Amino acid sequence: MERQDNGLAFIQRYDNIAWYEDGEVRILDRRIYPAKIEFVICKTHVEVMEAIRAMVTQSTGPYIAGPMGMALAAWECRNLAPEKQMDYLKRAAEYICMARPTTRKRMEIVTLACLKPAADALKAGKRVDIAIRDYAVESFNIRYSKLNTMGHLLADVIPDNGTVMTQCYADTVLGMMLRACKEKGKKIRMFCPETRPFLQGARLTATVCAEMGFDTTLITDNMPAYVMANEHVDVFTCAADAITVDGYVFNKIGTSQIAICAKHFGIPVYVAGDPDPGHPTWDTVKIEIRNPDETLEAMHVRTAATGLGIKGYYPAFDMTPPEFITGIVTEKGILPPTELKRYFEMGGEGEY
Amino acid sequence: MERQDNGLAFIQRYDNIAWYEDGEVRILDRRIYPAKIEFVICKTHVEVMEAIRAMVTQSTGPYIAGPMGMALAAWECRNLAPEKQMDYLKRAAEYICMARPTTRKRMEIVTLACLKPAADALKAGKRVDIAIRDYAVESFNIRYSKLNTMGHLLADVIPDNGTVMTQCYADTVLGMMLRACKEKGKKIRMFCPETRPFLQGARLTATVCAEMGFDTTLITDNMPAYVMANEHVDVFTCAADAITVDGYVFNKIGTSQIAICAKHFGIPVYVAGDPDPGHPTWDTVKIEIRNPDETLEAMHVRTAATGLGIKGYYPAFDMTPPEFITGIVTEKGILPPTELKRYFEMGGEGEY
Repeated sequence: MERQDNGLAFIQRYDNIAWYEDGEVRILDRRIYPAKIEFVICKTHVEVMEAIRAMVTQSTGPYIAGPMGMALAAWECRNLAPEKQMDYLKRAAEYICMARPTTRKRMEIVTLACLKPAADALKAGKRVDIAIRDYAVESFNIRYSKLNTMGHLLADVIPDNGTVMTQCYADTVLGMMLRACKEKGKKIRMFCPETRPFLQGARLTATVCAEMGFDTTLITDNMPAYVMANEHVDVFTCAADAITVDGYVFNKIGTSQIAICAKHFGIPVYVAGDPDPGHPTWDTVKIEIRNPDETLEAMHVRTAATGLGIKGYYPAFDMTPPEFITGIVTEKGILPPTELKRYFEMGGEGEY
Repeated sequence: MERQDNGLAFIQRYDNIAWYEDGEVRILDRRIYPAKIEFVICKTHVEVMEAIRAMVTQSTGPYIAGPMGMALAAWECRNLAPEKQMDYLKRAAEYICMARPTTRKRMEIVTLACLKPAADALKAGKRVDIAIRDYAVESFNIRYSKLNTMGHLLADVIPDNGTVMTQCYADTVLGMMLRACKEKGKKIRMFCPETRPFLQGARLTATVCAEMGFDTTLITDNMPAYVMANEHVDVFTCAADAITVDGYVFNKIGTSQIAICAKHFGIPVYVAGDPDPGHPTWDTVKIEIRNPDETLEAMHVRTAATGLGIKGYYPAFDMTPPEFITGIVTEKGILPPTELKRYFEMGGEGEY
């Protein structure tokens, strides 16, 4: 399979995000990007799962690292009998899915999908690790083509010389949106909240926007309402870690309060992503609570006083109800959040 | 004048916040508190103004440092002829008021008020610096007594075993509210957003709440809506840097988006402070824009990529309209934000 270069920024190319080769998966360490460009090397699929849990990669990164981890699992079990290899791969898929609870359903789709090319390769006597990676690359290429469609749909709702606010790091669809704006000759101004405590907005989003040549302003997470009131924001857009079929969006913590403010200021809210068939209703999504100590420090420097029993709290995501969302930008078109069943009627297969 | 010990936390006692003695003003450096307890020593009123501008002290700290700076100005000009001393003090008052634009009107009240005791002391042939400090201490004692009234009013709107969210560092009124809760035997749980980029919430508010024995959770600034949706917040309360007579609240950036969310979740919003007679309407307040580079770093560690032209933006305050405020907690009682004229009819003299 040929790796495509979509002209995206460095951290948006899937072969930079995560790649399997010669018995190891290398994952770009987004915890320290852009200050340093380093890769975490995983020698087993267990290490891949741990890297995803530790947020070495996030946003859509895990859906690239996950299949690469399956290729690595195939390498690990290459000397077993064929039926034992399939058992090993099934257990590996289940294991990788446990990395993060909020995105478990999406991860199941991409890891379980690797079992078919694995079985085919075993029958044909071919290398299973390479077959899984080839399959993954093919699916990434299809996925990137869908993201390109979504990027163009998003670019169409942004006026020329418009101002866009986003939240967290929308990964490839952000790059596709910016590329589409460039193709259409649209100049836009980006406002990026920093997205504490992991600071994706500061480290990843602002970097990508600026690298792609757009006017980029980084704000702290308490500034979105002020910017909406004073800087004429035309569109708020973000991606999602889960979109339920009944129209609820689960995305990085902070999205819901920005969406509530956007409604107050009359600013449209567009969420890029396909609904998840594994999540028919809002109450099927579990919000991950991460290490609370992370809200007691910033850039690894302690902020709060020690010795007084001050607690941290780190819900990684929040839920935005459909009343605050103008449109869900799917590969099949922009749909109102209350009409996501139409996506499946149009042949959509769901997000990963 | 006797200094009162109100049983408050260390950083809430005015003689720790700022104090004039022997030709210098020492100001507790809240930029590094609580990691370090250090004082900035000012040898002139110009240095006091610069310290306020640099946020060595903030919240109500400047209204303590300002009069202490006036005492220092009296020391500086002690060898001039009496009428020249008064000219010097008038210019010093004007100069100190320029420290921060949003709070200029309040600072005028406290610095200009020092001119009368200065004139009296000159007539009586007494030391002007000590006369100003004595006057300041007397006014602080009166002020703290008013804050105590406000603290009790606030404590009354909090249910026992209630959960309170605050924003930024409400300084002495926060301490008075917590002390009143203790006196009434109310157990409350505090949620403190960290208040980037200066991190008052993390460094000051959470410290004071925990020091005074309350269950304290520190969250990042993108979490208030999540906490409101999931942790049953009973009251959102904050202080203000300016309250206009037509009911608009100017407080630390982020207050407006929390108030907008509070309204959505049906949570009452109480703002502690008296209306400013110097600000009849919302459009008389100027919002200070601070050094934009501060949003590009956290705890003095750079977050954003360098060399790409990413811009920062640092509006220090925002405006919350009266529609999002349940009550303004004044020394004369709790008033709806649309009825603040009644405060003056009841004999109120305005906030500093």
